[in-house]
Amino acid sequence: MDKVNLAQKLALFSEHWSPKVVGELNGQHVRLARLHGPFVWHQHDAEDELFLVLHGQLRMELRERTVDVGPGEFIIIPRGVEHRPVAEEEVHVLLFEPATTLNTGNVREERTAEHLQQL
Amino acid sequence: MDKVNLAQKLALFSEHWSPKVVGELNGQHVRLARLHGPFVWHQHDAEDELFLVLHGQLRMELRERTVDVGPGEFIIIPRGVEHRPVAEEEVHVLLFEPATTLNTGNVREERTAEHLQQL
Repeated sequence: MDKVNLAQKLALFSEHWSPKVVGELNGQHVRLARLHGPFVWHQHDAEDELFLVLHGQLRMELRERTVDVGPGEFIIIPRGVEHRPVAEEEVHVLLFEPATTLNTGNVREERTAEHLQQL
Repeated sequence: MDKVNLAQKLALFSEHWSPKVVGELNGQHVRLARLHGPFVWHQHDAEDELFLVLHGQLRMELRERTVDVGPGEFIIIPRGVEHRPVAEEEVHVLLFEPATTLNTGNVREERTAEHLQQL
């Protein structure tokens, strides 16, 4: 039940699109990730997903429109909604989502993280 | 599916110990609260609770020890663990917890928030 310092945890890794688990509660994960570049279009069929931006500017592309999310802002992507996160420069995000959520959702590709590291 | 700006939402209210719902996903709430002074000792029998400090210094009293939580830090209080948040000066927190979580847990008192406002 120790506290978690987000900046300290972020300093422990540098790879992109590789979420790390920094907390778990009620079957949900708190994850931290560094994003850079465009991700893959995907959706989560049974899970809603929250992106809270800690650093940088996240462009969340949806099929109908794009939402720019900056530090101190979050967006919730409901289950079933196709999305593609894009980070023109490095972005740090905190994710809230079920522990079962796969980062690439319904898509399998080289950045699919099957087993998440805990920090 | 619009983004939520935490500072903008916090500017919409000033009362203490009265969490506001600013997001919902997977049966969980994202809540914002302003804290000032000592709260009541309580526990949540079936729900873990996350406090992410946005502003100020939160002192989380536990029966065995006290954890000081500052901006950019969070603490998860597991279900069944007695705790008392104390804010000597005003603290702003983001809470992540099940939508069913009552702010005072197993205790009923004047600050018990039965019906939460959505912002």
